[in-house]
Amino acid sequence: MPSANASRKSQEKPREIMDAAEDYAKERYGICSMIQSQEKPDRVLVWVKDLTVQKADEVVWVRGRVHTSRAKGKQCFLVLRQQQFNVQALVAVGDHASKQMVKFAANINKESIVDVEGVVRKVNQKIGSCTQQDVELHVQKIYVISLAEPRLPLQLDDAIRPEIEGEETSTSQAVFRLQSGICHLFRETLINKGFVEIQTPKIISAASEGGANVFTVSYFKNNAYLAQSPQLYKQMCICADFEKVFCIGPVFRAEDSNTHRHLTEFVGLDIEMAFNYHYHEVMEEIADTLVQIFKGLQERFQTEIQMVNKQFPCEPFKFLEPTLRLEYCEALAMLREAGVEMGDEDDLSTPNEKLLGRLVKEKYDTDFYILDKYPLAVRPFYTMPDPRNPKQSNSYDMFMRGEEILSGAQRIHDPQLLTERALHHGIDLEKIKAYIDSFRFGAPPHAGGGIGLERVTMLFLGLHNVRQTSMFPRDPKRLTP
Amino acid sequence: MPSANASRKSQEKPREIMDAAEDYAKERYGICSMIQSQEKPDRVLVWVKDLTVQKADEVVWVRGRVHTSRAKGKQCFLVLRQQQFNVQALVAVGDHASKQMVKFAANINKESIVDVEGVVRKVNQKIGSCTQQDVELHVQKIYVISLAEPRLPLQLDDAIRPEIEGEETSTSQAVFRLQSGICHLFRETLINKGFVEIQTPKIISAASEGGANVFTVSYFKNNAYLAQSPQLYKQMCICADFEKVFCIGPVFRAEDSNTHRHLTEFVGLDIEMAFNYHYHEVMEEIADTLVQIFKGLQERFQTEIQMVNKQFPCEPFKFLEPTLRLEYCEALAMLREAGVEMGDEDDLSTPNEKLLGRLVKEKYDTDFYILDKYPLAVRPFYTMPDPRNPKQSNSYDMFMRGEEILSGAQRIHDPQLLTERALHHGIDLEKIKAYIDSFRFGAPPHAGGGIGLERVTMLFLGLHNVRQTSMFPRDPKRLTP
Repeated sequence: MPSANASRKSQEKPREIMDAAEDYAKERYGICSMIQSQEKPDRVLVWVKDLTVQKADEVVWVRGRVHTSRAKGKQCFLVLRQQQFNVQALVAVGDHASKQMVKFAANINKESIVDVEGVVRKVNQKIGSCTQQDVELHVQKIYVISLAEPRLPLQLDDAIRPEIEGEETSTSQAVFRLQSGICHLFRETLINKGFVEIQTPKIISAASEGGANVFTVSYFKNNAYLAQSPQLYKQMCICADFEKVFCIGPVFRAEDSNTHRHLTEFVGLDIEMAFNYHYHEVMEEIADTLVQIFKGLQERFQTEIQMVNKQFPCEPFKFLEPTLRLEYCEALAMLREAGVEMGDEDDLSTPNEKLLGRLVKEKYDTDFYILDKYPLAVRPFYTMPDPRNPKQSNSYDMFMRGEEILSGAQRIHDPQLLTERALHHGIDLEKIKAYIDSFRFGAPPHAGGGIGLERVTMLFLGLHNVRQTSMFPRDPKRLTP
Repeated sequence: MPSANASRKSQEKPREIMDAAEDYAKERYGICSMIQSQEKPDRVLVWVKDLTVQKADEVVWVRGRVHTSRAKGKQCFLVLRQQQFNVQALVAVGDHASKQMVKFAANINKESIVDVEGVVRKVNQKIGSCTQQDVELHVQKIYVISLAEPRLPLQLDDAIRPEIEGEETSTSQAVFRLQSGICHLFRETLINKGFVEIQTPKIISAASEGGANVFTVSYFKNNAYLAQSPQLYKQMCICADFEKVFCIGPVFRAEDSNTHRHLTEFVGLDIEMAFNYHYHEVMEEIADTLVQIFKGLQERFQTEIQMVNKQFPCEPFKFLEPTLRLEYCEALAMLREAGVEMGDEDDLSTPNEKLLGRLVKEKYDTDFYILDKYPLAVRPFYTMPDPRNPKQSNSYDMFMRGEEILSGAQRIHDPQLLTERALHHGIDLEKIKAYIDSFRFGAPPHAGGGIGLERVTMLFLGLHNVRQTSMFPRDPKRLTP
């Protein structure tokens, strides 16, 4: 370890303390010089979450942030935080600590990172304000590893909600750990099902879906665009006989929408799969993948779910196996019965989607379901029409707590029909020539869909804004940090 | 199944055959109507790779592409391909097939997708041209599921390299399956090590590393940029106490380099990790992650490796455990001994990197090693200087077969030193204010690195161009498909 008191920082703040001549503890505290990998000490750091009565009376080293500190006569109580865990540490004048050392500890700026050597002591009364309720650390040495700059002595925020702030840190940690879990479960499930992960380009030469809502990039002397979806590329992989593919990556939408569920950049979890005879083969595989994710989250992330629930209470997410499938016409009937007026070929508005979610929950007790057979008129040109009903299509959305998280369909794999449908939609054939051409050399029937990661995280946890589930959200007005 | 002969397509080409009145097999072949998910037949399709002597004399259904077809009197030999596997199928005049049916089969355009019912028959002599060498299919029914458009009767390419073409398809399949494996092993290893996956934004408000080589995006009424690396965001997560994070995503470089190893968009596998006392804790974790990937590939992807080797022969990838670590000064000594003239603070040129790779291979018998302690002068401003030698830095590159695949370092976590180093590099402090500010509230010491996925794939397989390991490569001259 770099010796204490060695750094230029040590001369800055607690000078009056360091200068005191008769400090019998002066080697036991201080501000370390910056860790520049000078040495490789043997010292083992114990995790805060592992500080339990099993470690009672052991001497341990712990690294943590000073979450709170409270001096009281000859004692100073610190709460040391490590991720979502924290423990109380006591510096008290005695054999190990001097008056000066207690004062030093009490003056460490909040959020600074410290290394503490201490004895783990069982406490008689549970410490309600810490996650480690049964023990505290009796500090013998304390060194500042990374000093936080001081904040204002008392911020209004601090006064109003001292508890909430710590809780928010823990909530954020939990949200993003769970989100990492969603990605992991998505891949784990699909790899087990024989899918291949692909990487699709984000800079593309032509706007993928007609040209609206696309960001333009200066590409050397020309213009290029940011991909609004990996769909064309997923489909090309199917045409190249990869059978089952998935990808995870950013998706860009230059939509000037400022709602609770729109971002200009979000993470798409995309699936595309060849099928034998019916697109339900794919739809069911996708629904099962989501079910495996929900199960995995409930099995492996209970701590995180409870941590988020503490700040944002919410009922546990419910789902059925196999997943409930409703046809669009059934949904219409339910909505009409509830007093909604809608034409057969109208799309669902956001409020109607939510109402439908509530009706479905009441009737079937599930927060997750598939809505199948959307009107052809409300889907993109490449959607396969239903051969039995020209007004319907082989397409589906999936919903969590009444909000759409996935949109998918059987895609038209026949270039002639694709051309007809594009013309019907008034699309310039020249612009989609490469797309249509990719089906000219024998394309297997296939279907797929795209899932929004932030939405799944938000709705699984019952949160109310995708900005809570994106670390660095991007919207028309927000581009930093 | 949709009945044969029902489609408009069926009237197009083999009309003369279909019209023949006295065809006792006419229900046994034809062109299916487009699969629009009309039905859900019980028919089970068997995988080509599962056609072995264990299935001898069974009647099976198989879906495959017509890879080659060769008519010979009353017989037609087809090779049916499915991904990297293929099998011979025989249509011969007899009880099941009529003369017309054989002619129909012989006339199916190559690459069309067909469903075939046939009996699996053991063959006396191995079929050298197929992956399924011990059996062939005796066809009883054949329907075209998706018709490929005809190619020119004889293309020059076909004449020159009929074999290579099939091989290339298989090679590509193998390369990208292995690449999917790299991503999977990377995540699997890191999740097991306690890392959290994060998602970082690709559209950013300011150029991350000074402003050179960055693509500009029109963002509503302003300009934005495409991220050249997720580094700032990884580091912010470390400052937010995520401890160990990784991300996989596109990285954009507006460099006008047209080399075998540069792309303007590639996939970055990025790691960042807080450490206790020495950046080697992180460096060793990264090296071990790569070793786990190499081992996993050699264990789980032998078929793919051999398939690629068939077309591009290459020695197996060798590595040591633990990974060999050389210091920059040792590498310089080796190069100088080999006749290279270099100053102590010169960076390695590409030819010198390759030469060094050969020297290391000769001396240590490894294709993978770490080069540690780069001269401070050749690294970015945020690199932690070596406290023992002001001309060195706590930074490292990792190499595979003599080419760099990862660059990493301990990062400066102290805002004051970071400011000094930025000024030393002549960087405008205003432009990196947000970056420096993120270290003001107590940052743990940390290190990390970024890996290029396409390069790892290329070098593990001993290929010679990243364009072979990117499905849709992007370079200054290439933006399609």
